[in-house]
Amino acid sequence: MPIAYIRTPFPEKFGIPRQPGLVDASGVVEMQPDFDKPELFDGLETFSHIWISFIFHQCIGQGWRRRVRPPRLGGNQSMGVFATRSPFRPNHLGLSVVRLERIAVAQGRVRLHVRGVDLLDGTPVVDIKPYLPYVDRVEDAAGGFAFERPESRLEVVFALSAENQLRQLPGGKTLKSLIEQLVALDPRPAYQKTTATDRSYGMHLENCNIRWRVEAGRATVIAVEVMGQ
Amino acid sequence: MPIAYIRTPFPEKFGIPRQPGLVDASGVVEMQPDFDKPELFDGLETFSHIWISFIFHQCIGQGWRRRVRPPRLGGNQSMGVFATRSPFRPNHLGLSVVRLERIAVAQGRVRLHVRGVDLLDGTPVVDIKPYLPYVDRVEDAAGGFAFERPESRLEVVFALSAENQLRQLPGGKTLKSLIEQLVALDPRPAYQKTTATDRSYGMHLENCNIRWRVEAGRATVIAVEVMGQ
Repeated sequence: MPIAYIRTPFPEKFGIPRQPGLVDASGVVEMQPDFDKPELFDGLETFSHIWISFIFHQCIGQGWRRRVRPPRLGGNQSMGVFATRSPFRPNHLGLSVVRLERIAVAQGRVRLHVRGVDLLDGTPVVDIKPYLPYVDRVEDAAGGFAFERPESRLEVVFALSAENQLRQLPGGKTLKSLIEQLVALDPRPAYQKTTATDRSYGMHLENCNIRWRVEAGRATVIAVEVMGQ
Repeated sequence: MPIAYIRTPFPEKFGIPRQPGLVDASGVVEMQPDFDKPELFDGLETFSHIWISFIFHQCIGQGWRRRVRPPRLGGNQSMGVFATRSPFRPNHLGLSVVRLERIAVAQGRVRLHVRGVDLLDGTPVVDIKPYLPYVDRVEDAAGGFAFERPESRLEVVFALSAENQLRQLPGGKTLKSLIEQLVALDPRPAYQKTTATDRSYGMHLENCNIRWRVEAGRATVIAVEVMGQ
């Protein structure tokens, strides 16, 4: 049963970073009635990070897969589902550690402001736990094929048109920084990274439609358009 | 829906370490039909640690509590449930990181041999994920009231009777080491730690009944009895 829903800048799956903490995206965990009382969070403010247990709700309809092809491996190698963090897993349970910025109480309801989110806007949350460094930070853990933090792969520049569009938006500076971080991670499907292509890519971010092209390791953001205009 | 059940040395709650990794207790995750195919785990052997998401099944009947008194605080201070890892939480979801020793396949079924468990024998498991150091090991995390790893608090000695009983048990040496680690953590209720008392304490471990007394910071294990004998 969801105890909360999280608001994030990511209205669709394409472009969301594959793990938390890779980009500086903000989110707000909106606690649902029965779970939104300030006393339930008393003491949580002393922790810098929290675990969010959530449901990959947009994948439930597609069931789960025995084997998946992790994007980190270029989509060429298949792994058992339990060797990955794939959303297409039994029970569709997800787990993300995020930075807890502050706990806000308005009209007696609780909202957790967090950073470093990798969740779809509207994701149902089933648990909130403090991150306990002395147990959760395993110093001698070794991590197989996903051992390394992915490097930003693309240089990102903005076309003049996109710069102008950003300048007119409230919060445009923050949005620009988020676009830079997300596009640098190169969310294109693996098979399109190796073939030269003229096509442009698009993702939705907050209420904007972002478009960019990639050429020779450089991404050029060509449009930042407010949707529905 | 459980995908597995875990076998551990802990048939009852009293005496279980409060977090994983505190004692060197072994466990076996027995995958259930549909989830017990070796191909589902292909690649997991390259990870040293895994996350087990589980259900605190013995607490469901008691519901959840808005506030709890973490044992780490001596039972004197109450905190909001979401500021703790208490089992009496909405959805009763638990999360433990354990060391993955090996993945065994027998008669086509999969069993994960793990170490550092803190789970009740028979706990239903709802997810298995690899521990990804580059995301899960948060270097700059700060951890409030539960910041520090608990120190072993009691010196542990064995009465001659207990030594003799252990010597007659298969696996007695491993059991002795486990008893030492568990009793040193001092599982007594906080209010009994400050009052001098003559009483002895008991816990079940594997198929044995362990008894000990505490005096002036030293615990003496007085009996290790096989149950049902």
